[in-house]
Amino acid sequence: MTEFKVTPWEVEGDIDYKKLIEQFGTQPITEELVSRIEGLVGEVHPFLRRKIFFSHRDLDWLLSMYEKGKPFSLYTGRGPSGHTHLGHVLPWIFTKYLQDTFGCDLWFQLTDDEKYVLSSNLTLEEIDTYTYENTLDVIAMGFDPEKTKIFSDLHCAKSLYRHAIQVAKKVTFSTAKAVFGFDNSTNIGLIFFTSMQSVPAFLPSIQAGKKVPVLIPCAIDQDPHFRITRDVAEKLGYYKPALIQSMFLPSLEGPDSKMSASKANTAIFTVDPPKDARKKVLNAFTGGCQSLAEQREKGGNPHVCTIFQYLYILFEDNDDELEKRKQRCLSGEEMCGNCKKYLADKVEEFLKEHQKRREKAKGMIDDFVISD
Amino acid sequence: MTEFKVTPWEVEGDIDYKKLIEQFGTQPITEELVSRIEGLVGEVHPFLRRKIFFSHRDLDWLLSMYEKGKPFSLYTGRGPSGHTHLGHVLPWIFTKYLQDTFGCDLWFQLTDDEKYVLSSNLTLEEIDTYTYENTLDVIAMGFDPEKTKIFSDLHCAKSLYRHAIQVAKKVTFSTAKAVFGFDNSTNIGLIFFTSMQSVPAFLPSIQAGKKVPVLIPCAIDQDPHFRITRDVAEKLGYYKPALIQSMFLPSLEGPDSKMSASKANTAIFTVDPPKDARKKVLNAFTGGCQSLAEQREKGGNPHVCTIFQYLYILFEDNDDELEKRKQRCLSGEEMCGNCKKYLADKVEEFLKEHQKRREKAKGMIDDFVISD
Repeated sequence: MTEFKVTPWEVEGDIDYKKLIEQFGTQPITEELVSRIEGLVGEVHPFLRRKIFFSHRDLDWLLSMYEKGKPFSLYTGRGPSGHTHLGHVLPWIFTKYLQDTFGCDLWFQLTDDEKYVLSSNLTLEEIDTYTYENTLDVIAMGFDPEKTKIFSDLHCAKSLYRHAIQVAKKVTFSTAKAVFGFDNSTNIGLIFFTSMQSVPAFLPSIQAGKKVPVLIPCAIDQDPHFRITRDVAEKLGYYKPALIQSMFLPSLEGPDSKMSASKANTAIFTVDPPKDARKKVLNAFTGGCQSLAEQREKGGNPHVCTIFQYLYILFEDNDDELEKRKQRCLSGEEMCGNCKKYLADKVEEFLKEHQKRREKAKGMIDDFVISD
Repeated sequence: MTEFKVTPWEVEGDIDYKKLIEQFGTQPITEELVSRIEGLVGEVHPFLRRKIFFSHRDLDWLLSMYEKGKPFSLYTGRGPSGHTHLGHVLPWIFTKYLQDTFGCDLWFQLTDDEKYVLSSNLTLEEIDTYTYENTLDVIAMGFDPEKTKIFSDLHCAKSLYRHAIQVAKKVTFSTAKAVFGFDNSTNIGLIFFTSMQSVPAFLPSIQAGKKVPVLIPCAIDQDPHFRITRDVAEKLGYYKPALIQSMFLPSLEGPDSKMSASKANTAIFTVDPPKDARKKVLNAFTGGCQSLAEQREKGGNPHVCTIFQYLYILFEDNDDELEKRKQRCLSGEEMCGNCKKYLADKVEEFLKEHQKRREKAKGMIDDFVISD
C-alpha cells in the first residue's frame, strides 16, 4: 500500500481518491448527479463525465436550490506563490464552464497573505508580483468581466478582515489543530489565515443582503479550509457553501514526483515558451517499455503514463479518440514518441492561445480586479 | 499574601507592583531617570514624581537617543469595549504631557478587532459605536492635531494587515501560549490579534522610511503584547519600542472590587452626568472608621482609601496639600465626608470641562482620524 498525504499545504504520494473521500467525509460525484446537471444545462463538461471532479459536498442541495429558481454564486481561488501551471488551470476551466452554463457570479480570491505566512523564503514584494502574474492567467481564462471579481487578501484586507474576525471568533485552536494538523511551532498568521479563506463564501450574501447559495470548485486539498467555513456558516447566518472537488494533475516526471514550482520540469507553466513546454512533454514519464521491440510485444501501460493522464484530464475531450489511443497502447501498436508528439502539439497550441489572451489581459485588469 | 493576576485581558486582586516588575522582567522608574527627564524637558509630570508610571523597558536608551538628537514617536491605544473611564484617561494624560514636552508624533490605535474576538456579547456594530465614542475622549485630551493620528484596526485593516502578517510569521503558537496563557479553547482571532497590536510600533519607521525610536506609554497589563513586539522588532528591521508603564486606577468600591464597565459604580465614566459622578464619589470606599467618634480617636487609613488614591493619582497635583490631607486623616482631624466633597468638586469640574471638549471633538474627527 502506498501512503499519501493531502492537506492544503502538502500533497504527497500516490493518492487514492476513493479513500480520500472516506477520509475527508465528502460524497462521490455519481452518474445520477452528472445526469441531473445534464438535464439542467444540457451540456456536461468532460471533467464531470470523466470524474476529474470526483467529490462534492451538498452539490445535490445546490442543484435543488437552482431548480427552485435560486441562483448560486461561484467562489474559487489561488495562492500566488509562483507562476501558474496547468494543474492550477484545471479547476479554473471548470469554473468557467460553470459560470457559462449556470450564469453565475464568480468571486476569485488570491491568498497572498497565506503564501507569505507559509513560505520560508518569498518576500511580500515577490508575492505581489505573482499576484499580478496569476491574475493575468485568471483573466485569460475568459471569465465574464460583468460577473467576475478578482481580489487579493492584502489588497482587500479592509473589506475581508472585518468578516474574517467573525469567522475567527467561532474557531478554536483545538479545531484548527485537528483540521490542519497545526502544532506549537505553527506561526499565528497561518493559524488565523483560514478565517480569510472562509470570507468569500459569504461575500455574495453580504453583497446581496440575503442568503445566497455558493458553490466552490477547487482541488480536493482545499477541503479542510471549507470544513471550517461550513462549520461556522450557519452560526453567522449564511448557507453552508457547497463544494465540487477535483483530482490533481500529476507531475510530468511520473507518479513518484511531485509537481512543484521549484522543479520546473515537473509541470508546464503558463509562461513557459511553447517550445520549452514541448521539450518537457517529450521528456515526460510514460508507461512505455525499455525498448521499442519490447513495447511492440508487451504493449505499454497507460495507467501510469503521464502523457495519457494529461490527455485524459486536459487535452483530449473526444472519448472515442482517447479509447482508441489507449487500446493501441495496450496492444503495442502505438509507440510513446507518437503520443508525446500528439500531446506536445496540443500543449503548444494551448500555450500560444493562452499567452495571447494573457497579453490582452494586461489591459483588462480594471475590468476584473477589485481593491479596498 | 494576596494573589493577583495581570494580563491584557484580566486584572484581578490586590496588585503588588514591585512583584509585577520582577514577574514581567521590566525595570523600575528610578529617581535618576526622573531627574534625567527633568534635565531634558524642565518639567516633570506628577505621574513620574509619584511613580504612577512606575515601570519601563529601555527608557534610558530612548532618552540617550533623544539626547543625541534622534526624536521619538509615541504609540498608545484603547480597546473600545465600552465608554471611557478615568482609568483609561490616566495614560492619555501622560501621553499628552510627553507629546507636549518632547514634541512627539502620536499614533493612537483603537483595537476594535481585539474587543470583538474577546467579547462574549458585543456586536461589531456596538464596538463601532464605542470606537467613535472613545475617539471623542481621545480628541478631548487636547492632543496636537498636526502630530496625532487616531485609527481603528478595522478601519485601517488594509494598511495594518500587511504588516501584521509579517509579525505573525515570526510568532509561534508556543510563544503566544507562553506569553498570554492561551490554550486549545482560545479562538484563532485572539491568537492572531497581538500581531495587529505590534504594527503601530513600526508605523513611524515605515512612514519615515528609516528606523524611528518609539515610546509606548500604557498601563502595565499591556506589557505581554509588547514583549512580542520587542521580540520581532529587530528581525523586521526596526528598533525595539521602549515602554513606560502605569499602575491602574483603583475601583471606587475599594481594593477587592474590580473597576469595570459592567459595574457602573466602580468607575467614573467620561460620559457620566457630573451630578451622578459626584454621587459615585460620595458613595466611594474610604479608609475611615465606623463612627465619627472612632475616627476622631484612631484616625483614618489613607493607604486603603479610594478617595485618597484618586487624589494622589489624578486630582491633587500639589504635594504639600496632599501630605497635609494625609496627616489630618491619620491624626483623626479630617473626616471622610470632607475628603469626599473635596474630590467630588474636582471630579465634577473635570467632567464638565472634558464634556465641553468632547462636544467640540465631534467637529474635529477629520483632523485626527485616519482610515484606509
